[in-house]
Amino acid sequence: MASINDNFLKLKAGYLFPEIGRRVAAYAEANPDKASQLIRCGIGDVTEPLPLAVREAMHKAVDELGCRDTFRGYGPEQGYDFLRKAVADNAYAGLDISADDIFVSDGSKCDTGNILDIFGKGNTIAITDPVYPVYVDTNVMIGNTGEADESGRYEGLVYLECNAENNFVPAIPEEKVDIVYLCYPNNPTGASATREQLQAWVDYALKNDTIILYDAAYEAFIQDPDVPKSIYEIEGAKNCALEFRSFSKNGGFTGVRCGYIVIPETVTGTSSTGEKVAIKKLWSRRTSTKFNGASYPVQRGAEAVYSEEGKKQVQELITHYMGNAKLLREACTEIGLKVFGGENAPYVWVACPEGVTSWDMFDKMLEEANVVITPGSGFGAAGEGYFRISAFNSRANVEEVCRRLKTHLA
Amino acid sequence: MASINDNFLKLKAGYLFPEIGRRVAAYAEANPDKASQLIRCGIGDVTEPLPLAVREAMHKAVDELGCRDTFRGYGPEQGYDFLRKAVADNAYAGLDISADDIFVSDGSKCDTGNILDIFGKGNTIAITDPVYPVYVDTNVMIGNTGEADESGRYEGLVYLECNAENNFVPAIPEEKVDIVYLCYPNNPTGASATREQLQAWVDYALKNDTIILYDAAYEAFIQDPDVPKSIYEIEGAKNCALEFRSFSKNGGFTGVRCGYIVIPETVTGTSSTGEKVAIKKLWSRRTSTKFNGASYPVQRGAEAVYSEEGKKQVQELITHYMGNAKLLREACTEIGLKVFGGENAPYVWVACPEGVTSWDMFDKMLEEANVVITPGSGFGAAGEGYFRISAFNSRANVEEVCRRLKTHLA
Repeated sequence: MASINDNFLKLKAGYLFPEIGRRVAAYAEANPDKASQLIRCGIGDVTEPLPLAVREAMHKAVDELGCRDTFRGYGPEQGYDFLRKAVADNAYAGLDISADDIFVSDGSKCDTGNILDIFGKGNTIAITDPVYPVYVDTNVMIGNTGEADESGRYEGLVYLECNAENNFVPAIPEEKVDIVYLCYPNNPTGASATREQLQAWVDYALKNDTIILYDAAYEAFIQDPDVPKSIYEIEGAKNCALEFRSFSKNGGFTGVRCGYIVIPETVTGTSSTGEKVAIKKLWSRRTSTKFNGASYPVQRGAEAVYSEEGKKQVQELITHYMGNAKLLREACTEIGLKVFGGENAPYVWVACPEGVTSWDMFDKMLEEANVVITPGSGFGAAGEGYFRISAFNSRANVEEVCRRLKTHLA
Repeated sequence: MASINDNFLKLKAGYLFPEIGRRVAAYAEANPDKASQLIRCGIGDVTEPLPLAVREAMHKAVDELGCRDTFRGYGPEQGYDFLRKAVADNAYAGLDISADDIFVSDGSKCDTGNILDIFGKGNTIAITDPVYPVYVDTNVMIGNTGEADESGRYEGLVYLECNAENNFVPAIPEEKVDIVYLCYPNNPTGASATREQLQAWVDYALKNDTIILYDAAYEAFIQDPDVPKSIYEIEGAKNCALEFRSFSKNGGFTGVRCGYIVIPETVTGTSSTGEKVAIKKLWSRRTSTKFNGASYPVQRGAEAVYSEEGKKQVQELITHYMGNAKLLREACTEIGLKVFGGENAPYVWVACPEGVTSWDMFDKMLEEANVVITPGSGFGAAGEGYFRISAFNSRANVEEVCRRLKTHLA
């Protein structure tokens, strides 16, 4: 009799986005005349074409696979050297990160979930609230939590509240945690963390032997030159932090799939006998055994993000989406809503009018404005009373959303 | 202080193929004049160009991503309907498997490792010996075993010996196991299982509430019309078996990355409270939370494997590799070696001459014939005294390998 992993039964009914999908589908079915008017600003999914440089590189790679002399089968599980080197040289120029520290994958969602494979049981794990739900659910699934309470908070996790008072960067906890997830620029709040705030977290981690899992999937959207783009800009981070990055949001790879983790040699965990073990060694072994490398044409596409043309085209995408964010911020502000984020991130985080819940707001926006947003409470108890608007859309759609906001919410 | 997953420390030094790579690199470095003569028949990696139909489909998909109207971002985590349907209609025609039972991934290596996420602790797990090392190592990593003994066998796993006497299909065990991995056509032995043998396993599974993890990655190489291509050809299998398949070996996707698991609704595991839970539901949830779908252009390429042109081109690849297998079988037989496999699988499994170990044979083949094979003992204790030759190569290389076998081993 095969037993199942009972931890799965602790998971709440739906991962946030499937639940949104369900409500939208139900509305569209009940109101077929409105279905074509729906504008989706819910899930943080890019909408603009894949950059030409990326497509050209992928075409070339596909052609190479058509010729015996240039055919490639299994690649190195950790990623091709050409891509690892391009990442180290471009994304980490001047930060003393080597190609060998870069582990290429098929995306950050997989990486942030799979990383738990290499950690032991019994770690105290901290997440922010609100938070990207994958961090929570993967900890539930692997058995790092107890049951959820009524607000959806799981026993055993440490929730670090993010709110308007702390600018959505959590205070350093008084207790000791073993692993903490931080994500800046933040999904869902669009907040960014200052150098001083990150330094305080790194100092805390070094003092407490904590590992920081730093999700920098949105770093490309940072406009303010004083905001750090990588945790490795912070003194000491190479001894305590892993960094997750993705080509999804800068290069438009949400359907193409490529990301990576940076793991400096100097980040260690502790075995049950007290031995220090390099996280990099464990992750490399995990990768060799459970992964077979990202698709070759995809890795060539990712490499092209760093070509001269690629950089220019990515910058145009960023400029486009951040222009959207600005319009959305302005429209929400104009109708009297309190707005956060959207300045160094593609997400605008908006406080619901007094007394309106996040899901109320979701339903109202869906039914009255025919705009799909994401309810803040879907990201955690502390997200209640907020909603997230994604700036990933065409300009025309964003302008229309702004008009509808003014019509239906003013 | 972050604790690590101590189970990783139980793993033997090297996954088999990295160790082979190390020895080959050392030899090539010490003998630079021989390096260019090396022929690799070790790792089971395809060598022939990706079929034209696949490349055309991938080109088209990349172009679609370049246009806003046809751009696709995040796809369904479980795979696009077009591919799930193509698989169900083609690979499972007449077997009552629906598109909804197909879960598309980035490859079978990932799937066979990741599937363990959804099972509980304390299951009795059986593997064959010899075996594809990933089944073993992923069980070690997740904590389903104790330490390894000197022969490399891990405490807690049930090893089902496969040898010449049982035609490399294990006898039904007397004890009860909860999960069993079966792989036919087999990697590494090249053996195939008859309908009667598989029926006996399914009957055993139904009687003991065992789940069969059936790896059919090599089904396309089956030549004998009486050999089952899918476990679902066996009565009762839909109540006890998952099937893993891949586009790696038929379509030449080892570098492109695509595979899938088939999970009928009727396969269940048991929760700690005795509740029957559909494995399909658990895997779907795992997929939604920890995966973001295989790359869109890759899924379009996989779909093209089932087009009229695609089928023809795949058949040509199969014919090519099976022609290689025939030559290798004949050459080994001619020099007096006892040969298995290679008739319904792309692997030829050869008994070493009396008294010669697998790694001795590996070194001899490397140093004298400059041919890289895989030592049988690398696949488990029962593989000692055998070696595997892969038929994945160009015809010219295979002919040269045959000549060298006759020169150096006759």
